[in-house]
Amino acid sequence: MTLYATILAGGSGTRFWPKSRLNFPKQFLTLQGTHSLLQHTVKRITSLIPPARIQVVTAEHLHAQTLAQLPELPPVNVLSEPVGRNTAAAIGLAAKQLVALDAEAVMVVLPADHSIADAQAFCTSLQQAAEVVRHHDVLMTLGVKPTYPATGYGYIHIGEPLPTPGVSGAHHARRFFEKPPAPTAARFVTAGNYVWNCGIFVWRACTVLQEMHTFLPDLWEGLNSYWMASQTSIDQERRHQYYLALPSISIDHGVLEHSSRVGVLPVDWAWSDVGSWRALTELGPADTDGNTIVGKHLGHDSTNLVVYSPDKLVATVGVHDLIIVDTEDALLICPKERDQDVRELVKLLQQRGQTEYL
Amino acid sequence: MTLYATILAGGSGTRFWPKSRLNFPKQFLTLQGTHSLLQHTVKRITSLIPPARIQVVTAEHLHAQTLAQLPELPPVNVLSEPVGRNTAAAIGLAAKQLVALDAEAVMVVLPADHSIADAQAFCTSLQQAAEVVRHHDVLMTLGVKPTYPATGYGYIHIGEPLPTPGVSGAHHARRFFEKPPAPTAARFVTAGNYVWNCGIFVWRACTVLQEMHTFLPDLWEGLNSYWMASQTSIDQERRHQYYLALPSISIDHGVLEHSSRVGVLPVDWAWSDVGSWRALTELGPADTDGNTIVGKHLGHDSTNLVVYSPDKLVATVGVHDLIIVDTEDALLICPKERDQDVRELVKLLQQRGQTEYL
Repeated sequence: MTLYATILAGGSGTRFWPKSRLNFPKQFLTLQGTHSLLQHTVKRITSLIPPARIQVVTAEHLHAQTLAQLPELPPVNVLSEPVGRNTAAAIGLAAKQLVALDAEAVMVVLPADHSIADAQAFCTSLQQAAEVVRHHDVLMTLGVKPTYPATGYGYIHIGEPLPTPGVSGAHHARRFFEKPPAPTAARFVTAGNYVWNCGIFVWRACTVLQEMHTFLPDLWEGLNSYWMASQTSIDQERRHQYYLALPSISIDHGVLEHSSRVGVLPVDWAWSDVGSWRALTELGPADTDGNTIVGKHLGHDSTNLVVYSPDKLVATVGVHDLIIVDTEDALLICPKERDQDVRELVKLLQQRGQTEYL
Repeated sequence: MTLYATILAGGSGTRFWPKSRLNFPKQFLTLQGTHSLLQHTVKRITSLIPPARIQVVTAEHLHAQTLAQLPELPPVNVLSEPVGRNTAAAIGLAAKQLVALDAEAVMVVLPADHSIADAQAFCTSLQQAAEVVRHHDVLMTLGVKPTYPATGYGYIHIGEPLPTPGVSGAHHARRFFEKPPAPTAARFVTAGNYVWNCGIFVWRACTVLQEMHTFLPDLWEGLNSYWMASQTSIDQERRHQYYLALPSISIDHGVLEHSSRVGVLPVDWAWSDVGSWRALTELGPADTDGNTIVGKHLGHDSTNLVVYSPDKLVATVGVHDLIIVDTEDALLICPKERDQDVRELVKLLQQRGQTEYL
């Protein structure tokens, strides 16, 4: 049972505007060092899974750029969805390609745009989860131990143990909770047997397809039609129609919340979903004034800033707790606690038809 | 007694960093419309004084750019100081050129980097001041009626009337006060017979030289030596040494505060010395959110900003009372009330040897 990786790279977040754009979504951003989040995601696992066994699922309009960022991958490993249909469809598509190649394939599902600094610990967790999959044929999820009562993440309630030789901590997943209200989140953190659902999964490709057949029969049928059409000379327009018709649902809502074959491996390496500009503070150390700088900054009485400005000198006097992002044609300034409202700017641009900035 | 104008354009303020630089001082900045402050200064007076009678005194390293900005001026009218020696020297140099040309010349002295919207009212005031000069041969100053107890301007105490046919309001200047402390400024404003010294003067060139001879004999002698050297084949190095040796003193301190032949004409047009980025709010109307924008801005819950960004879209969320200035290689962000501290950044750049930004 060989390990494969499936990187989900079709996202198009608006919270990293103005750096992320319709044609340059978050996974392509270089927020640390010289590699993009997508490139880091690949490099993080290559000691465990070689590029030849790494798949990427992306959107058609991002296909060329994805190939360009990952020259080490065989081009055939980069799959394009004609249209985004959420994670269940993307994972189903990838699983179909894998079982066609290797009926016993174990797939590691990874978001393309998260940050995990400790690659070694991460790969060890993946190996352990794969071990649990080999023994129990469950859908394994990785659960990050919560460090604060986050209301922006899903939680997994840890159930009975899943005893596995050489692996400690694997359990059944008792229940999934979508982003909870603050008091519930606080209760979860205090209880100790809840972990964050970080969207990283390990399972046999054929098992996840089997569970889709049970819980998402329409998706399963639709994917079959699309897959068969892709293998024949059927016209592209008709194939696209098959994909367009797929139900748009997350793997969490569509499968994991219903299946009784779900496990969870609690992990304790540092993880960030890099959800907004503010998350830059989680990616690297701040300077002595508490400023997190990617690029050039000159500050006088300036503290707790997040500055992203690879090219231009950002000079600040007497400002605090701001996010400052400079790009070639647009500049963003907002307080850290308003970082979610960057989406409002994107909406305004849409309303005004200023598509050159989208 | 023909009217001439002398524009003092040797300044190099640091408070407009990062737009103003060592080789691109404030007078060259375009803060309104399509003309620089210097160009506006010329255009404001051409209905009264044609370009052939407008002189500019600037610094040697700014000579070419000054000529380029003012192609309508005869090149010989742009005088360069080898080194800045404050306003008394610059005015003395200009006066010497004028008397050589026209012994009866009346010169209007204008800062190159102020803003006065009502050109017609301004020219009327200059004409009236010139009329007073013709009748009384005094050193006329224009005094702006104070609108608030400013501590950043000098004040002139209005004295006895200087009756002049066709001119109302001209008086002797009783006393000059440099930037007063707040309580004094408040008293001046309440008293009603104090005006701001806006650095705009009208006098006969020969009269101001005469007063320099009395109150600044060293300057007078030095200027004579420099002037004579300029007319002969004496080497440039030696000429520069003469200018270098001139006392560096303002015309206010050196002459106006001592002479008994000083008049003042109170004026009531709107005037701004454009002293810092914050002054942009005085140059044009703000939008409905109180934002003063030169360039491109997209705001969500953003009020009372000063934005200077001719090329790049500045997008703001939840910020207020900030100054945001974008230039090709540097970006400035500071609260309006800290605008004077922009100089601190310039000092920091000097300390760090980052001369590319100076």
